[in-house]
This record gives sequence, C-alpha cells and structure tokens, in this order.
Amino acid sequence: MELFYASVTGNIVTLSAEESRHCVKVLRHKKNDIIHIIDGLGTMYDAKVIQPDPRATIVEITDRHHDFGKVPYNLSVALSPLKNNARYEWFVEKATEIGITEIIPMITHYTEKSKIKIERLEKILISAAKQSMRAKLPVLHEVQSFEQLLRSDFEQKLIAVCDAHSPLIEVYQKDRTTLILIGPEGGFTQQEMQLAHQQGFIPVRIGNSRLRAETAAIVATSVIANVNLN
Amino acid sequence: MELFYASVTGNIVTLSAEESRHCVKVLRHKKNDIIHIIDGLGTMYDAKVIQPDPRATIVEITDRHHDFGKVPYNLSVALSPLKNNARYEWFVEKATEIGITEIIPMITHYTEKSKIKIERLEKILISAAKQSMRAKLPVLHEVQSFEQLLRSDFEQKLIAVCDAHSPLIEVYQKDRTTLILIGPEGGFTQQEMQLAHQQGFIPVRIGNSRLRAETAAIVATSVIANVNLN
Repeated sequence: MELFYASVTGNIVTLSAEESRHCVKVLRHKKNDIIHIIDGLGTMYDAKVIQPDPRATIVEITDRHHDFGKVPYNLSVALSPLKNNARYEWFVEKATEIGITEIIPMITHYTEKSKIKIERLEKILISAAKQSMRAKLPVLHEVQSFEQLLRSDFEQKLIAVCDAHSPLIEVYQKDRTTLILIGPEGGFTQQEMQLAHQQGFIPVRIGNSRLRAETAAIVATSVIANVNLN
Repeated sequence: MELFYASVTGNIVTLSAEESRHCVKVLRHKKNDIIHIIDGLGTMYDAKVIQPDPRATIVEITDRHHDFGKVPYNLSVALSPLKNNARYEWFVEKATEIGITEIIPMITHYTEKSKIKIERLEKILISAAKQSMRAKLPVLHEVQSFEQLLRSDFEQKLIAVCDAHSPLIEVYQKDRTTLILIGPEGGFTQQEMQLAHQQGFIPVRIGNSRLRAETAAIVATSVIANVNLN
C-alpha cells in the first residue's frame, strides 16, 4: 500500500503538485481509484480520485482511520546538530521509521553548528512516515539550548553517556513520557553532566564501544521501540 | 585516541600511503611519537614513529593489546543486497560501530541485485572499526544464497518477519552463536519462510511498523548489542 501526504480539512482534498504527479504519472491512478492519504496528524484516509490531474489531483474522502500506525510509547530524543547534515537527516529518517514522538535539535557546549535545515528535514519526516505506514509525523522542534531542555517536563529523563554504569535497557521504564539527550561529537562537558544530574537526569549506556552521535540516537530509539513490543 | 590500520607481521611496520599521509600531514606526527594501530584481526598496537614520511611512514611496535574493543557476543547478520548501494554501505558502517561479528550478503527470491562492492565495503569496515575503537573487523562474506544459509551452523537461527508473533527481544538468548536473516525490499516468499521453518529458524519481530531492510538490520543489531550490555 502506497501512502500520499496531504493536509485534510474537509471531504474534498487537492493533492500537491508533487503528490499529484506521483499519483497520476507514476502510479497511473484513474478516476474512481481508491488511494490512501496520511495527514501527518495521526489519521489515514481512504479517498476516491475525482479528478486525476498531474498538477492538482482532486480526491474525495470515503473513510477515516484514526491513530493509524501510532507509535505505542512516548519518546523524545534530543540530538545535537552534527557537522555533517547528511548524518542528521539519516537520524531523522530512521528514527521516524523505528518510532519516535519528538525530535529536538539541542545546542550544547561542544555543538559545532547551531542550525538545522528544518524544511529539508520535514520532507524526510513525511517520506519516512509514508514508508513506515505511520499517519502521524514526529514533532520536529526548533533548536533548543541544553539549559532549556534540562527544565523540560518528562516523567523519565535520561542522558546517554559512554561510560555510564547502567545500561539503558535496564533503566528504561515503560509507560512514561521519556526524554533522552544525545551529545554532539565531543560529548557533554563535566558541568553539563553535573547540571543534568541536579535536574534528575539518569546517565545510561547504550553500547560497549564509542558510537557516533547519530548512531547512539538510533540505537537508543531501537532499544526503546523493542522494549515496547508485545 | 586516533587509530591507524595496518597489516602487522613483525615489529617494524610500514603504513600505507593513505595512513602515512594522515599520520604525518594531517595529525603532524613526528619521529618518536607514539601512535596506535589496529590490525583488523583483534589486536591494537602501540607503536613509535621511526621514520615519518607522508608516503611510507615506518613505525616500531612497542606494545600489544589483544581483543581490543572485542564484540562480547557472536552475531551474524545476513542482509540481502539492496537496490540502493548507499543503504547497504550505511548498514555496514553502523553495524560495525554497534557491534557485529559477520556480515553476509544473502541472495533471496526477491533480491533485485546480486552484487555488492566488496572493496568499498571493506574500506567502510575499517573506518567504522577505527571510529568505534574495535581492533577486529567483522567478517564480510561473499554473497551466499538463501539455501546455503539455511544449512549453516549456528546455535540460534532467527528470521526477521514483520508480522511474526514473538519479539526478537523476548526470543533472543545470550551466549549462543546467532544468525539473523533480513530479507530484501519485497520480503521473503511463503516458500522461503517454510524452508526456514523446516531448518529450525524462528521468526522474530523487531518493530511495530514496516521497516526498510537496512533499518531492520540495524535495529536487530542494536537490540542484541544492548541485551548483551552489562
């Protein structure tokens, strides 16, 4: 099943030029075909093609499926922007597939770059959500400072550290809203570790070797997704 | 700590042109500096620079560290070659970082491409092993058929299937040599599933959504690495 992405406000929806082209030119959908649309907010729609047009295809909603492909846990990952954009994009793609609820670009002392390309990342979110059959996109936040994040409100606050005593897989508790912080290439400073400790963050280990930042973020997401499988 | 890669047979080692350039031009190592070398076979060496030369630096081994960064479990992942080479390369890089012992490109019914670029993948293995401080490279096999793999000898044989009943994290048992099969974009055929079943492979689930093949391979590796953390 192929999914399209559109903003849905009533029963009649016009697909974007890109989605229209894909629908009519690539998949060759005709009038009266049923296609499937996600709105990025959690609902998947069945829709009948009313007017196939490679620039602006019009469809009519025939059915709604709420919470389609919903991530069955709450997980926010704060990952520092990385020197190499492609690595951040890869994290966003994979985390969306595996299952994540919020992505927060976090600025720490050793962060070498304070910008991310939000528009490009949003395209990747949409494409990964379609691929993995999820109607709701993860929330992609604007960049936030480490200090802002320390004060944020989660039931379970974790910080990934290479030499932490406890493995994530042992510390993590299900059914709690969870934030995990993943530092940049240079890791966290001693002072950052101390501030996090004061705010109740628990240091967790997610590997037996030195992982790249984006690898650490994906490993943490994979572990939490799998602990929640049943 | 920065690691170099070289084949080590005696106490005197000549670095390759690429490693020599990195040692002398980029890191500006001088005569009598101590550098660190992995041999890809499991040993990390301390070595003194005898003759810095951007084309052929000569060093002398001063100490040996066996099983440096050894992956503390045995895990072979068989992943079908993918249409997009970059995705396979990404899998090889991440799996090496996270920890894997063997990588097997597997040809199944729906495999669309039967070749992989071994030399390019070997470079990626080396670079990821250096990055993650592992002296031993995973074994990268030549392509093997699904049927060959069915007959291979592992204490624990798993096959990743979207709608499998049991999660990997529940089925997996530590301290056993383990093979996990990950299918291509189109999945496994009914017949392949049946053959695998007859040979004692257990179907396991590693996500609550449709994962790309290379994502599935990394999620499985992440879960097994983390179950083995302690």
